[in-house]
Amino acid sequence: MEQQNIIITLTSDFGPGPYVGLMKGVILGLCPKAYLVDLEHSLAPQDVLAGALVLEQAIGVFPPGTVHLAVVDPGVGTGRRPLVVDGAGGLWVGPDNGIFTPVFLADPQARAYEISDESLFREPLSATFHGRDIFAPAAAALAAGRDPASLGPLAGDPVRLDWPRPRRDGETLAGQVLMADRFGNLMTNLSRPEVEAFLDGRPALISMAGGAVKGISNTYGQSEPGKLLALFNSQGRLEMAVNQGSFLGRLGLKLGNERGLEVKVEAA
Amino acid sequence: MEQQNIIITLTSDFGPGPYVGLMKGVILGLCPKAYLVDLEHSLAPQDVLAGALVLEQAIGVFPPGTVHLAVVDPGVGTGRRPLVVDGAGGLWVGPDNGIFTPVFLADPQARAYEISDESLFREPLSATFHGRDIFAPAAAALAAGRDPASLGPLAGDPVRLDWPRPRRDGETLAGQVLMADRFGNLMTNLSRPEVEAFLDGRPALISMAGGAVKGISNTYGQSEPGKLLALFNSQGRLEMAVNQGSFLGRLGLKLGNERGLEVKVEAA
Amino acid sequence: MEQQNIIITLTSDFGPGPYVGLMKGVILGLCPKAYLVDLEHSLAPQDVLAGALVLEQAIGVFPPGTVHLAVVDPGVGTGRRPLVVDGAGGLWVGPDNGIFTPVFLADPQARAYEISDESLFREPLSATFHGRDIFAPAAAALAAGRDPASLGPLAGDPVRLDWPRPRRDGETLAGQVLMADRFGNLMTNLSRPEVEAFLDGRPALISMAGGAVKGISNTYGQSEPGKLLALFNSQGRLEMAVNQGSFLGRLGLKLGNERGLEVKVEAA
Repeated sequence: MEQQNIIITLTSDFGPGPYVGLMKGVILGLCPKAYLVDLEHSLAPQDVLAGALVLEQAIGVFPPGTVHLAVVDPGVGTGRRPLVVDGAGGLWVGPDNGIFTPVFLADPQARAYEISDESLFREPLSATFHGRDIFAPAAAALAAGRDPASLGPLAGDPVRLDWPRPRRDGETLAGQVLMADRFGNLMTNLSRPEVEAFLDGRPALISMAGGAVKGISNTYGQSEPGKLLALFNSQGRLEMAVNQGSFLGRLGLKLGNERGLEVKVEAA
Repeated sequence: MEQQNIIITLTSDFGPGPYVGLMKGVILGLCPKAYLVDLEHSLAPQDVLAGALVLEQAIGVFPPGTVHLAVVDPGVGTGRRPLVVDGAGGLWVGPDNGIFTPVFLADPQARAYEISDESLFREPLSATFHGRDIFAPAAAALAAGRDPASLGPLAGDPVRLDWPRPRRDGETLAGQVLMADRFGNLMTNLSRPEVEAFLDGRPALISMAGGAVKGISNTYGQSEPGKLLALFNSQGRLEMAVNQGSFLGRLGLKLGNERGLEVKVEAA
Repeated sequence: MEQQNIIITLTSDFGPGPYVGLMKGVILGLCPKAYLVDLEHSLAPQDVLAGALVLEQAIGVFPPGTVHLAVVDPGVGTGRRPLVVDGAGGLWVGPDNGIFTPVFLADPQARAYEISDESLFREPLSATFHGRDIFAPAAAALAAGRDPASLGPLAGDPVRLDWPRPRRDGETLAGQVLMADRFGNLMTNLSRPEVEAFLDGRPALISMAGGAVKGISNTYGQSEPGKLLALFNSQGRLEMAVNQGSFLGRLGLKLGNERGLEVKVEAA
């Protein structure tokens, strides 16, 4: 019987250069059956939170058993632990710097192991490119069927990001912008269940710097071109957008400068 | 006998973020044998014509039976129909907004079906990311061998772009620039057969804002570095270029602002 | 027995447009078992040296027998020869313009053949896109098992770039910057063995425009955030970097303007 290929996704802040391809070369040398899928490599350099938000979107989308390799690694070569996390339907490989926060949030049973079996490491081991020399070989071993618990001991207390949470403040639910996408749509930390529980059937008024809008649309095209709107996006997060336009551009902001902007939900 | 992998190409305006990878995750969960090839994801947001021009280049290049997934979808969530088009040697999946115009031009027998079998759709169906929730599953089903006619009824009168056509104006053949590539070469809507029929053996004078050139070169390197030249490009389209330079840059234009510039062909 | 997939890597200056995908379509039509891996496609247009530096990094990282397709081809359509080079553990396909210099440096036994079997070429053969019409089919044929020597005669005296070499000048070892990466780290042409032989155990003082630093770090995180440091990077090359910052940015330079900057190594 033919063995099913195992998917390995790759996420990094490596940009368009050859570093991603080099990791793939290492993986395919160790596990020729791996099926490689890029998630995102244009994360702002060293932006661990942005990497976490990408991984969050992959939960539940890829087949069970998928291996997710995530390398945003400002601490490369220091004492930060290399991890594999077993949870949320996948195996997650990368540095212990909080990038796996969404996995721990989605799956309280997730277990983290410190990758300490040095026989896996590429030789000579560089101090600056553990993506190629530690994480890629570990991901390949997992895709080839190795038990994550065999890579090293349980890693207690893995780093979790201080994930921004919405605040309820009297008659206001206050959230903030996490990320913009290339269309200039602003994704917030407000989830559909939180917003709907807060509104409890009342009509919504959503406001932030740059505009306010009554009601939550189902889709971009529901309003006129150029009009501001709010909707729950494909991740179930409240999003502020301009139909056929860029809200980010209207705010005069460049991509990457939107994080932390305040968003308020009130009853209209 | 091992079944041949089926290629699925992907084209979108999603840029470098994770949306493309998420579509791939959905596809591979449904059709693990699919072989995924990116065509272009850096199309200007919502530029349907640019997407059509990319698809045009794929006709005849990929093996017969290739599935082409194309998501430039400003009308996502509105009434625009999701389509699969069977023609020009492939199956083409995406929104009914004109992006498949080159398929209809290349193959008058092409048939369009409206994807209406909701059992295909991902649940919960988002209103904003049909690439992930409708088009990716449809492409996966086709790659797994499903008959396109089984996805839904024939779609009458699919949208066609008002494809800019050259005009003959006395002793002038007037065309326009469709796109620049990253080298700053300007591709026009003038095809080799049209230009050769017009010239009928006479030497050519090609002119546009920014310069004129006598004769049509066979290749960039035929003239001196820095010299303007005209040639038929790898798609058989008349192109204006600067050998080892950027004509777009010489015109003082940024990529994306070149469409519609006039080009004239006359007998020299 | 199932035949192992053969990896084909792709490197070019084609940027984000569809040209890379079109080459893949041609390859997969001829060799469906090829496993395609992108190395880099955002090389500055026509920057052959940058392409060579990418290929250098692939040596020893991909499995033996990998086919490397490299198309940075300002001379496309002129008399420059199309080559396949058999050496350094791989097969290298592309134009004879020096891009394979690192292969010849790494493997003095490497042999170059001129691709002259026109039965391989795509028809009609364009004069401007040999990546699609000559190099992709040649790479596919090699991946399908064809002997490189069967593609054409030995190519005498292939082009080699005038690779910048370090100079020893009294008590100074003088090198230069080859490339920056997206993190703003500057990679030099000084290799670890050269630097260590020069220092012979003495402590190092590394200096260039923009700063000087004593000692060579093992890793970025070894110094304080924002501090300049020197280290041997994952290719074993001396690199100047700023911990959690961009040295390129500090110099006020844009990516692509760093090549040739002088770097000096002295005994501290």
